[in-house]
Amino acid sequence: MSSSFTPFNRILMGPGPSNVNPKVLQALSKPALGHLDPQFIGLMDEIKDLLRYTFKTENEATFVLSGPGSLGMEACLVNLIHPGDKVIVCVGGYFANRMTQIVEKIGGNLVTVKETWGRAIDPENLEHSLKQNPDTKVVAFVHAETSTGALSDIKTLSGIAHKYGAFVIADTVTSLGAVEVRIDEWKIDAAYSCSQKGLACVAGMSPITFSQHAVEFIKNRKIPVQSWFNDLNLLLSYWNGPGKRAYHHTAPSNQFYGLHEALLLLKEEGIENSWQRHKENSVKLILRLKELGLEPLVPENERIPNLLTIKIPHGVDELKVRTELLNKHNLEIGAGLGELAGKVWRIGLMGYNSNEKMIDYCIGAFKDVLK
Amino acid sequence: MSSSFTPFNRILMGPGPSNVNPKVLQALSKPALGHLDPQFIGLMDEIKDLLRYTFKTENEATFVLSGPGSLGMEACLVNLIHPGDKVIVCVGGYFANRMTQIVEKIGGNLVTVKETWGRAIDPENLEHSLKQNPDTKVVAFVHAETSTGALSDIKTLSGIAHKYGAFVIADTVTSLGAVEVRIDEWKIDAAYSCSQKGLACVAGMSPITFSQHAVEFIKNRKIPVQSWFNDLNLLLSYWNGPGKRAYHHTAPSNQFYGLHEALLLLKEEGIENSWQRHKENSVKLILRLKELGLEPLVPENERIPNLLTIKIPHGVDELKVRTELLNKHNLEIGAGLGELAGKVWRIGLMGYNSNEKMIDYCIGAFKDVLK
Repeated sequence: MSSSFTPFNRILMGPGPSNVNPKVLQALSKPALGHLDPQFIGLMDEIKDLLRYTFKTENEATFVLSGPGSLGMEACLVNLIHPGDKVIVCVGGYFANRMTQIVEKIGGNLVTVKETWGRAIDPENLEHSLKQNPDTKVVAFVHAETSTGALSDIKTLSGIAHKYGAFVIADTVTSLGAVEVRIDEWKIDAAYSCSQKGLACVAGMSPITFSQHAVEFIKNRKIPVQSWFNDLNLLLSYWNGPGKRAYHHTAPSNQFYGLHEALLLLKEEGIENSWQRHKENSVKLILRLKELGLEPLVPENERIPNLLTIKIPHGVDELKVRTELLNKHNLEIGAGLGELAGKVWRIGLMGYNSNEKMIDYCIGAFKDVLK
Repeated sequence: MSSSFTPFNRILMGPGPSNVNPKVLQALSKPALGHLDPQFIGLMDEIKDLLRYTFKTENEATFVLSGPGSLGMEACLVNLIHPGDKVIVCVGGYFANRMTQIVEKIGGNLVTVKETWGRAIDPENLEHSLKQNPDTKVVAFVHAETSTGALSDIKTLSGIAHKYGAFVIADTVTSLGAVEVRIDEWKIDAAYSCSQKGLACVAGMSPITFSQHAVEFIKNRKIPVQSWFNDLNLLLSYWNGPGKRAYHHTAPSNQFYGLHEALLLLKEEGIENSWQRHKENSVKLILRLKELGLEPLVPENERIPNLLTIKIPHGVDELKVRTELLNKHNLEIGAGLGELAGKVWRIGLMGYNSNEKMIDYCIGAFKDVLK
């Protein structure tokens, strides 16, 4: 018979999850509450407010999905796309590619704007595509492409999409909390994220926000949203304040305790300070990696500060290095994904881990393993 | 600014969540692991084995969805139904009704077999409907209808459906762990459950199982599964053992720690012993409630042992009673839902809570509030 599980105390410097603040871990083990308990509904309201702070938005429709970020991706797309709608997805990596798969499942008329993996999306390519496809209903892109380490200028991309009257969907899975995200100022109509990266919480939740314009559109859809669980009309009734709620699902109370604590810690630090911290520590880590002969894949002004892709030096057995880092130093880093498999390592320095101690630890371990 | 959240230590005797074993709560706050960590993949394998034990199945396709039971409901339906397929749903309550909504979103050709709320599904009605609809592809029903307290004989229902060559989908949300469930012996093709009821874990996960026959059908679908997140073909690749896995989403490691611990505790008790415990304590609770003049809605041989619906006595303000139980005695019970709103209370005695101490507590609180 199996016995109770005791996880290793890993140093998580891959593309996520990152290590969780101990205060957040503690919050998870508080007593469970019923999802209709007035105290729990109060907690849900506080989470909505804290997420508005985190997303830099006044959107009423800001809440958290009871599932991982990839569920959030599907939720944004399935609510805003009707079968047959023309949808442009800017693809420069694995996760944008996943968006195209979902668009096809919804029956959208897919147009892709392709970018080299490891580069930010070129706004001119989007503009060119929109000129050719002025009937585009939705433009979707990834802010921080977790598979390549490239950060796109989604403020500019959003501005271009709006010139053509399209809804804008942004993936902020790897950016939220760690990189400047301004939903309202940048006029993003729908955005989703995850809990286990910049927010320094455990995995399994997807913060999400919809503009009022998007909400009105979804409320008035003639063809119902294909998905039941992700139907925004049902979710919004559930996330209404006391007295107006309609049952949707049983919210995971203990996960929400953790998210609440993580968002509170982020607000205590100040989100602009968090962005700055991630930027500064990223610069330091890159300098130290370069001293070891390790070079970033992405050009300097297009890098995600909290997730670096590092080119694997010639002659180095990348799997052997990762395995040794894990087994000898308890350090998890990420492998390349998709087109970049075998070509890069991915090093995350995010949330609770974005500090000098972790940089020292990572460099020390690499020195030992590469020697 | 808000502060750290401290939930009340409620006695949860509603329709779920129920109180969580303290060992499970402790497991939640262990250090997070990466979803690709060999140790974590080992944990996923153990969870699959433990769920096979719990579902009484040898199904290879047995795992847990990273979202609540209602996501599991959608997953079973969306994988087995093509647009246009004839689907019979046996409806005697709120949750079976939800199944019909999902079938319609998928584009299924819906036939309902209606039952009085508070009664088990009549197998003759299903047989009659199948005779009239011999081209039915899927028959779906709820084992333990959480909204009414009625337990259906799904072994018999499944046998009838198979005579007509239909796939069988069973909701075991309120039964799994607490009531006899035998997936293989009863030839259920797809079943889903939740984590926060009979399994005595926190909310937010949906154990799920598919027969080999169902898996083959889904693998060979000509029209792809509408949902990306719930596409069984993608999920099965993710839940494959070491070396064969394909990335799907970032599993919620800490939730899985909790589920693993809860399933282990259930196996230690022995699942048949757990079924027996729930049955015995249910009988005791009903006797004690009857002494207070409180009568069950459901006939004796159709009752869910772990979830009782109690008729609200004439002249009693049901909301006032629930509010006093909560505020004065810290005791949560459930209100009626749908057709039974205002007509019944729902009292759950499940998982960790199914014991004499809880019966005493519940009766004491009712005595005080009803006096």
